[in-house]
Amino acid sequence: MANVGIMGAGSWGTALALLLHKNGHQVTVWSISEEEVEMLSTKREHESKLPGVRIPDDMEFTSDLAKAVKDKDFIVMAVPSPFTRSTAKSMSPYIPEGQIIVDVAKGIEEDTLMTLSQQIEQEIPQADVAVLSGPSHAEEVGRGIPTSVVIGAKTKKTAEYLQSMFMNEVFRVYTSPDILGMELGGSLKNVIALAAGIADGLGYGDNTKAALITRGIAEIARLGVEAGGALESFTGLTGIGDLIVTCASVHSRNRKAGYLIGQGMSMQEAMDEVKMVVEGVYSTKAAVKMGKKYGVSTPIIEEVNKVLFEGKNPGEAVRDLMLRDSKPEISTLSWKE
Amino acid sequence: MANVGIMGAGSWGTALALLLHKNGHQVTVWSISEEEVEMLSTKREHESKLPGVRIPDDMEFTSDLAKAVKDKDFIVMAVPSPFTRSTAKSMSPYIPEGQIIVDVAKGIEEDTLMTLSQQIEQEIPQADVAVLSGPSHAEEVGRGIPTSVVIGAKTKKTAEYLQSMFMNEVFRVYTSPDILGMELGGSLKNVIALAAGIADGLGYGDNTKAALITRGIAEIARLGVEAGGALESFTGLTGIGDLIVTCASVHSRNRKAGYLIGQGMSMQEAMDEVKMVVEGVYSTKAAVKMGKKYGVSTPIIEEVNKVLFEGKNPGEAVRDLMLRDSKPEISTLSWKE
Repeated sequence: MANVGIMGAGSWGTALALLLHKNGHQVTVWSISEEEVEMLSTKREHESKLPGVRIPDDMEFTSDLAKAVKDKDFIVMAVPSPFTRSTAKSMSPYIPEGQIIVDVAKGIEEDTLMTLSQQIEQEIPQADVAVLSGPSHAEEVGRGIPTSVVIGAKTKKTAEYLQSMFMNEVFRVYTSPDILGMELGGSLKNVIALAAGIADGLGYGDNTKAALITRGIAEIARLGVEAGGALESFTGLTGIGDLIVTCASVHSRNRKAGYLIGQGMSMQEAMDEVKMVVEGVYSTKAAVKMGKKYGVSTPIIEEVNKVLFEGKNPGEAVRDLMLRDSKPEISTLSWKE
Repeated sequence: MANVGIMGAGSWGTALALLLHKNGHQVTVWSISEEEVEMLSTKREHESKLPGVRIPDDMEFTSDLAKAVKDKDFIVMAVPSPFTRSTAKSMSPYIPEGQIIVDVAKGIEEDTLMTLSQQIEQEIPQADVAVLSGPSHAEEVGRGIPTSVVIGAKTKKTAEYLQSMFMNEVFRVYTSPDILGMELGGSLKNVIALAAGIADGLGYGDNTKAALITRGIAEIARLGVEAGGALESFTGLTGIGDLIVTCASVHSRNRKAGYLIGQGMSMQEAMDEVKMVVEGVYSTKAAVKMGKKYGVSTPIIEEVNKVLFEGKNPGEAVRDLMLRDSKPEISTLSWKE
C-alpha cells in the first residue's frame, strides 16, 4: 500500500483517486476550493464532474496543501494547465529530494513552449517528474471501462513503480522513456480535434474527418520529432490514440468548440457557448510558434489558426487544404524510377 | 480526356465512375450482371448501393468484358476480392503490354497470402498494376464530400498520371511507392474493425475502442513491415486513416458484425444478420497465418480469431488483452537507466 497525494479534484483527479483507492492505496485529494473539499467530504460524490460515482468513506479531501504533499510515496498532479506552474511553486518547499510526481494534465506554455512536466521540474528541481497520458475519458475510467494508458518516466525504475501502482484488470498501463513526445502529442492533438470538429460542423463526413485526423497526426509528429519527441509516441496511445478518443467524443470541449465554429460561430462565441477553457485554442498558438521555431510545415495547424484568430471562413480553409500542390503521401518513401 | 474502363458496378465502382466522369473522362462501367447493367442504363441511379446520386446520361454500362477493357487509357478494378483473380484472368487476353490497371478493392487470398494487386499481376503479367486506397466511404465520395486517398504505383510516372486523373477539389490524391504496405494495411484493418465492433457490442466506451484501434494498428504495422510493407503506410491514410473511418461508421459491415458478436451472437449468426460478405472474417484467418509465417506477436488478431472460430467469450477476450504482462508501449524505445 502506498500513500498518495492527488493535487486537483476535477473529473480526472477524482477518477484517478478512485482507481488508486480501488488498487488498495491510501489517497488524499487536494483542491484549492474549500467548497469543493466540503462538498466531496460530505456528499461522497462529485455531482457536477463525475455524477453517479460513489466516493469511498476513507478517501480524504483537503484544501491544506502541505497535508496533501508531505510524506507521500508519490504525488499525482491533476490541476488544469494554467495553474500547474503556480501550484508546483507552492508545493516545492514540502517536496523532498527524489519525490515522485506524476503529471496527468496536458498543455504547452505559450511564452516558453515548455510542457507541464518541464514547468514542474523548473519549480521543483528536486522532484522525479513522470507523466501519465493516453485515451482516457475520466467518466469512463470512473465507471471502470477498460482503458489503456502510458506512464512516461526518466528511469525504468520509476516507470515500472508507477505502472505497478496504477495497473489493474480494467486499467492497462504501458511504460515509455519518451516524456516529451508523450506531452507534445497530448497537447498538440487538441488543435487537430478542433479541426475535426470544424469539419463536423461544416457537415462533412467521416472521410474528411479521418483524413484530417491522419494528416493531422503526421503533421504533429513531424513537429514533435523536430522538438525532440520520439515518432512512436505520436503514432501510439498518447498521440493518435488520444486524438481518436477526443475526436469521437461528443463531450470533448475542443471538438465541440470546433463544431460550433464550423457551424458559423466566431471563436469567441464558441468559447462562450462551451463555457469552459478550450485548451486547443491555446495549443494552436503554441503550435504555430513551434512550427516557426523548428522550421516545420504545418498546413492544418495554420488553417486552424487562421480560422480561430483571423476570421477565415472554415469552408474555405478546408478547400485550401484539399487543393494544395499534389504530392507524395510520405516524403521519405520514393520510387526507384 | 482519358478513356476509362471500370470493372464492377458496386457502390465503390459507381462512385469512382462518377468522380472520373466529373473530371471530364469517358467512362465505361462493366458488371457481370446483365440486370444491373440494364437497371443502371435505364434508371440512371444505383438505387440499392448509391441511392439519390444521379448517373449522367453519357456514362456507359456494359456486361461485355472486352468492350470495357479494350482501348482504355487505364482500367479501374472494383470487383469484390473473391472475384478479383477470376475477373483478371478473363480480362488478360484483351490487355496490351503496359496497360495501367488500378485496383481499388482490398483483401488477402487465404491460401497464398497474396494481395489483390499481386493476384492481378499473376493473371495479367503484361499490366502495370497500381492501387488506390484510403479513408473513403463510397456514399460520401458519391455525394462530393472532401476525401483524401493514396495512389500506389510501381513508377512515379504511373502514380502521378493516375493522381492527375482522379484529383479534384473534393478528392485529394497523394502518391506512394509502397503498394504492398497500402494493400496489407487496407486488408488487415478489417480485423481490428471487428475487434472495435466487439468492444462496442460489449458496451465498452471510447477509451477501450481508441486503445484497440491504436494497439491494433501497431500490431498490423509490425506484421506488415515484416511482410515487406513500409511503416509509414500503416500510420498513414491507407492504414490508421482507413481504420478510423471503418470504426467510426455505423455502415461498416466489419464493425457491425463485431458489434453483434459483442452482443452475444455467434460469428455465423452475425454474418447471417449482416447479409453481406464480412471481409474481416477472412482477413482474420489470413492475418493469423501471416503472424505465424513471419513470427510476429499478434495478440489482438489472435483474440479476434478465438472469438470468431473457437467460440471464446468476447468479454473474456478483452479481459485477457488487458491483463497481459505489463510492459513498455514501444519495445524499440528504452531508458538510459
